[in-house]
Amino acid sequence: MTTTEKVSGPSTGGEPTPPLRVALLGCGVVGSEVARLLIDSASDLRARVGRPLELVGIAVRRLNRPREGLDAGLFTTDAEGLVSRSGVDLVIEVIGGIEPARSLILSALRHGASVVTANKALLAEDGATLYAAAEQSGVDLYFEAAVAGAIPIVRPLRESLVGDEITSVIGIVNGTTNYILDKMDSQGAGFAETLVDAQALGYAEADPTADVDGFDAAAKAAILASLAFHTRVGAADVYREGISEVTTSDIASAREMGSVVKLLALCELSPAVDGAGPRGVSVRVHPAMIPRSHPLASVTGAYNAVFVESRSAGRLMFYGPGAGGSPTASAVLGDLVTVARNRVRGAAGPGESSYAARPIDPIDDVVTRYHVCLEVADVTGVLATVAACFAEHGVSIQTVRQQGRGTDAQLVVVTHRATDAALSATVRALRTLPSVRDVTSVMRVEGET
Amino acid sequence: MTTTEKVSGPSTGGEPTPPLRVALLGCGVVGSEVARLLIDSASDLRARVGRPLELVGIAVRRLNRPREGLDAGLFTTDAEGLVSRSGVDLVIEVIGGIEPARSLILSALRHGASVVTANKALLAEDGATLYAAAEQSGVDLYFEAAVAGAIPIVRPLRESLVGDEITSVIGIVNGTTNYILDKMDSQGAGFAETLVDAQALGYAEADPTADVDGFDAAAKAAILASLAFHTRVGAADVYREGISEVTTSDIASAREMGSVVKLLALCELSPAVDGAGPRGVSVRVHPAMIPRSHPLASVTGAYNAVFVESRSAGRLMFYGPGAGGSPTASAVLGDLVTVARNRVRGAAGPGESSYAARPIDPIDDVVTRYHVCLEVADVTGVLATVAACFAEHGVSIQTVRQQGRGTDAQLVVVTHRATDAALSATVRALRTLPSVRDVTSVMRVEGET
Repeated sequence: MTTTEKVSGPSTGGEPTPPLRVALLGCGVVGSEVARLLIDSASDLRARVGRPLELVGIAVRRLNRPREGLDAGLFTTDAEGLVSRSGVDLVIEVIGGIEPARSLILSALRHGASVVTANKALLAEDGATLYAAAEQSGVDLYFEAAVAGAIPIVRPLRESLVGDEITSVIGIVNGTTNYILDKMDSQGAGFAETLVDAQALGYAEADPTADVDGFDAAAKAAILASLAFHTRVGAADVYREGISEVTTSDIASAREMGSVVKLLALCELSPAVDGAGPRGVSVRVHPAMIPRSHPLASVTGAYNAVFVESRSAGRLMFYGPGAGGSPTASAVLGDLVTVARNRVRGAAGPGESSYAARPIDPIDDVVTRYHVCLEVADVTGVLATVAACFAEHGVSIQTVRQQGRGTDAQLVVVTHRATDAALSATVRALRTLPSVRDVTSVMRVEGET
Repeated sequence: MTTTEKVSGPSTGGEPTPPLRVALLGCGVVGSEVARLLIDSASDLRARVGRPLELVGIAVRRLNRPREGLDAGLFTTDAEGLVSRSGVDLVIEVIGGIEPARSLILSALRHGASVVTANKALLAEDGATLYAAAEQSGVDLYFEAAVAGAIPIVRPLRESLVGDEITSVIGIVNGTTNYILDKMDSQGAGFAETLVDAQALGYAEADPTADVDGFDAAAKAAILASLAFHTRVGAADVYREGISEVTTSDIASAREMGSVVKLLALCELSPAVDGAGPRGVSVRVHPAMIPRSHPLASVTGAYNAVFVESRSAGRLMFYGPGAGGSPTASAVLGDLVTVARNRVRGAAGPGESSYAARPIDPIDDVVTRYHVCLEVADVTGVLATVAACFAEHGVSIQTVRQQGRGTDAQLVVVTHRATDAALSATVRALRTLPSVRDVTSVMRVEGET
């Protein structure tokens, strides 16, 4: 397609409509799907935007891979040359990672292109710099694909709920860990062997650190919290625990109390305190037990879901595939059409909204419930001793269950709401008690309904 | 607040920012909540928009009602005077119904105001006229609150999924009927007595026609189908059956096959036919059985949910409160902030996208599965006769179950996929068979998983 071809869009009444020129950075699983859809769906995209979208170049690391259905002339290894090429309107970044993605996005924005990115790590690390560059050039920075794949959650938080006060966002935003925990729950297998299975099936990467240690979920939590609470939250602000220490006995214990273990990304607005400045936020990623009756409990396999509570709207849930080439490409193309429409109309969509400038609550101050397993000596009075230890640290016990006898005696304690600091102090003190052999597991309990 | 007060927004760097002037049409359950939030959340809304929002007037039918917390000077019975008042930037319409809402919205748009409305009936009846008026004035028409209350579904369809090909949208979009069917399922009560209870509890209106006969759901289905398939679908294009004929025995029969009865709004893109022009759409509202394993089956009480399938994104679900003053006000205010931001930036959001101009499939051509109950004579060979009748009309039987004996003998047939025309012809023929006393129930079976 050339710029002189006559095509009509809905808003131009038959006038020639020059295409918007699209540059694509990265041609892996997501990028190649985006390229394919840009070509296959060209006439629909043109009708929806009001002008054609023309793919003018694809930056890749190596030119020598076969890429079916894509014109070899589109490919270049000179990504910087592509984004700074004159007349590029829209840049899609699906390389991932911090560099060179950051430099390329900044260059694109400074050259006046709108950017669509799926790069959660970069947004969580340095979103403010990207927003500022977009604002300065009066162009768009959109990133629906960065959180929860195809599930529309960025736009609902940024726009649909922007007249409301969001009080919490709880997400299952990492498909790999959800798949592993789900298999551990349904098949009774341990973490290590389930991880190996997940790797064999392609649900986990050879180096699973980013997923199983919660880094991926933490980046997404930072993005969700920033949007929900109109403040800046970076990856470093997110308290993070992975799932590698979740045991089959944790999962069995959850099951006994009608719960399930999930890796949750929790973003919460702290209670208002009179005269204390803006309300704080707590943002954390860790395994937690949630009741099976909670909507998030039924999110199985590699699916993602985000549960939002707000003052006026109440409880909302968004559910769908959290990863994969096609779902991520869907989110990228939705953004692409939106920023292309904005460009046709000569305007930009919403920029950063960080006016609330909220403090990050330290994890010590975070209040939730806990599930604590102890191995104890089977001596008279051990329950009283343990209960007294919780009470001394201001942690109120909701239920306690004794399992086994003799040297295998185990106490399972579920607390009422307490601060992390109080619970940690309790656990330290429990470990000094002669009748407590070990504190074998501490897990948070979320999703009170 | 006056226009000369100095306030700073994020995008103005301390310059005086004159307010955007907001007119509110209607002050019922939703309107009064919107007014309250506009006042209580003024500083947050100002920061999010970049300019203050000033409520300049509220049009009501009668002035003599007490309205706590709202300045009496805001109220007027002259709605037309309010929307045509010079300098009104944003008009919120929460009156409902066709007139005077249509005239007032058109007047507002023609006077250059952007409009936020919750009016599903009007959009389904005459959306094209409203869109055209907005387009002509270069202003916005937003209506997130018109479908499924606070659940963000309009914006996801209009923007997030706009780069994808949506193939079906299935919604539980009427809380009243979902509440009634849910109670019938959980309590075993009949339709009439459950309706009376729902009315007593405020879940159903004194005149329940709009809800129980499916008119409300049909308007929402028309809006959803228009957005999802980039075409015009009006309320009159929607095939509609209500829930008043759903019996306790239908619900028991659904339960026996592991299903539940829901009033569904189904919007489907027809299969592509080579050389046959644009693909058609079928849009229908009727009670149907869906498997309890389907995500929509667990939507209970007055909650709403919308299940979307698309080519790239796969299966998505959106869930939340479908009605009520606060949730609807949340959706209205989200739109208000969005159109206000657009106004600050001097641009409008997406307009109508109806380029696909798809034909509406007649109900006769719609293909689905059916659950058919027959009262039969307990004579040898009745099953063979009935099965032959289905086969003659090209309807394939998936399962058949015989219940009772003697004069109470009943056959429950579940079919494979067949057209509505073939099924209807089958039912007419069944009624002529001497061994068939009555066809007591025919219900569609949806949500094949």
